[in-house]
Amino acid sequence: MLANPFYSQELQGPFQLYDLGPSFTLEEGGTLRGAQLAYATHGRLNKAKDNVILIPTWYSGTSKIFEQAYIGKDRALDPSKYFIIVINQLGNGVSTSPNNTAGTGGRGGFPKIRIGDDVRAQHQLITARFGLKSLALVVGGSMGAQQTYEWAVRYPEMVKRAAAIAGTAKNTEHDFLFGQSLIDAITSDPGWRNGWYESHEEVRAGLIRHAGIWSVMGLCTEFYKQEIWRGLGFSSVPDFMTNFLQTYFCAMDPNALLTMLWKWQRGDVSRHTAGDLKKALGRITAKTFVMPIDEDMFFPPRDCLAEQKMIKGSEYRVLKSVCGHLVLTGFEADFRHQVDAHLKDLLSLRV
Amino acid sequence: MLANPFYSQELQGPFQLYDLGPSFTLEEGGTLRGAQLAYATHGRLNKAKDNVILIPTWYSGTSKIFEQAYIGKDRALDPSKYFIIVINQLGNGVSTSPNNTAGTGGRGGFPKIRIGDDVRAQHQLITARFGLKSLALVVGGSMGAQQTYEWAVRYPEMVKRAAAIAGTAKNTEHDFLFGQSLIDAITSDPGWRNGWYESHEEVRAGLIRHAGIWSVMGLCTEFYKQEIWRGLGFSSVPDFMTNFLQTYFCAMDPNALLTMLWKWQRGDVSRHTAGDLKKALGRITAKTFVMPIDEDMFFPPRDCLAEQKMIKGSEYRVLKSVCGHLVLTGFEADFRHQVDAHLKDLLSLRV
Repeated sequence: MLANPFYSQELQGPFQLYDLGPSFTLEEGGTLRGAQLAYATHGRLNKAKDNVILIPTWYSGTSKIFEQAYIGKDRALDPSKYFIIVINQLGNGVSTSPNNTAGTGGRGGFPKIRIGDDVRAQHQLITARFGLKSLALVVGGSMGAQQTYEWAVRYPEMVKRAAAIAGTAKNTEHDFLFGQSLIDAITSDPGWRNGWYESHEEVRAGLIRHAGIWSVMGLCTEFYKQEIWRGLGFSSVPDFMTNFLQTYFCAMDPNALLTMLWKWQRGDVSRHTAGDLKKALGRITAKTFVMPIDEDMFFPPRDCLAEQKMIKGSEYRVLKSVCGHLVLTGFEADFRHQVDAHLKDLLSLRV
Repeated sequence: MLANPFYSQELQGPFQLYDLGPSFTLEEGGTLRGAQLAYATHGRLNKAKDNVILIPTWYSGTSKIFEQAYIGKDRALDPSKYFIIVINQLGNGVSTSPNNTAGTGGRGGFPKIRIGDDVRAQHQLITARFGLKSLALVVGGSMGAQQTYEWAVRYPEMVKRAAAIAGTAKNTEHDFLFGQSLIDAITSDPGWRNGWYESHEEVRAGLIRHAGIWSVMGLCTEFYKQEIWRGLGFSSVPDFMTNFLQTYFCAMDPNALLTMLWKWQRGDVSRHTAGDLKKALGRITAKTFVMPIDEDMFFPPRDCLAEQKMIKGSEYRVLKSVCGHLVLTGFEADFRHQVDAHLKDLLSLRV
């Protein structure tokens, strides 16, 4: 196990832990022993247990960053109305991950995880710990959207509403290659040592290269052309690079990022239907909003629209921002307002 | 000097060499001593010397690949009508470059080159060797478009027509960061050794990562979604990666690529006008076609359109392809036909 303060209760909490039991078998064949999901709740579960919103996390994200961006009184995700459970995905550094797993099964020996593993683990948590039979809404962005789709396909009877923000049900080849470039940026660092570094700081050069590729694909041309970074408090693009993207990613655990990247590359609900995506999405009974970001360079609206058309009764709601994918992290007020407005619409729909 | 067969007469020729003289001083302060431009000509110069088409090369490109894609009888660039001069940009591996320069000024010691240096060198070639006073057309793609804009701004009295395909007059911040990610992919390879490797094969891992980033930014989402690679003779995306992109880039000299990348990042005609792009583009008197590729991920139409609006009497001609930027290399027949049609229109305009 590695000490990394970024994933601590102090920075990411308060969160609770749920034990997945002595052994949790993974789709790829590995087993997590004594694994835990870290989750945060907001608001109170009502007697009918029908006011639950479940939120899975995105790549590199934690329950905390989601809370800070999207949860609050009078927001769509309002703890005074809903019981909101934000669950850290496996491998994100906070839930069971390479950095907090002891022995040969941790760090460079951590097993491969699939989106389906996350959703099964989350299902176990909400049924065993809270006795839930339905979810008023599952909402997630990016890899959180991948998990949202997986929820809606795998447990259609439970998911009443679903909002997939800036993500796809089946990852594209292009997105796979983007993920590979991020993996290569980290694993090419000699300090990575096949995952057996002693501190994430030994992999700083790789994490900086990884941040560099995010600067291209994670924002977009207009973000730089319009110098949106100025409004975020940065004096130049190098200042933005160093003190936003590099600071953000260099605090993280490289193996955790790699675990999520491998999982992200392979997100695909059609694994339930022998590769038939239409059939898989046809299983969805949730009222579903498909919400791409118009300038997203790797989950482009076109790809999301193609999937939306396969989901009965779904709606296509495009989010507008000149910031690209990373606006998801919540740094633009207008974007947050758009998300709120769409989610309020969705939550107001009778199911 | 390094032996690299990719840049030989056998593979890139026939080309001629033009001596730039004992010393050619560069904008950044360095000097090339005994530098040479490699160029290929097609067709014959007429008596009036008014049938000349000048073509500068793109990133990683050579005079040969341009010839194979765009020059031919009954094409727009028809050697039976025009005297066509394709000039390899400095640092591209064929003209004076890190790999073919001896001593401490070669390889890792090769100086920084600017787009303006190329265009001055090309001007010297065509005036001293051919006595040219005007160019019927300057046309280039990508970095070739950067040089085309530089020609039209620097020597407006000479350039009668200009076609800038998939490139900008002033490079964007986003594009700079894309270039940086490519630089980082190469220079992070321990085999690069600050440019003092003994063979480009020592930098293979870096070149493969560089190819990986091109797979994301150089094509586009639809290229993969529609499996266009199948039509190019590949059986899978990994096959396309290995036997197209990796084969293509791994043959090249890493320092040559780095020389071009540094230059590409800083292409900017507003250096002539103290940063005033509108004023710089206002100098252009050539009939100019601005020809972006609709799915280009790093020279997007929007950026090209903004520049086109600053050029008097210019036309905006969008090229359509689901292949993204690298379609420029000529692998799609319909794209080649579109380029030909627009260039024929441009060449038919009276000036």
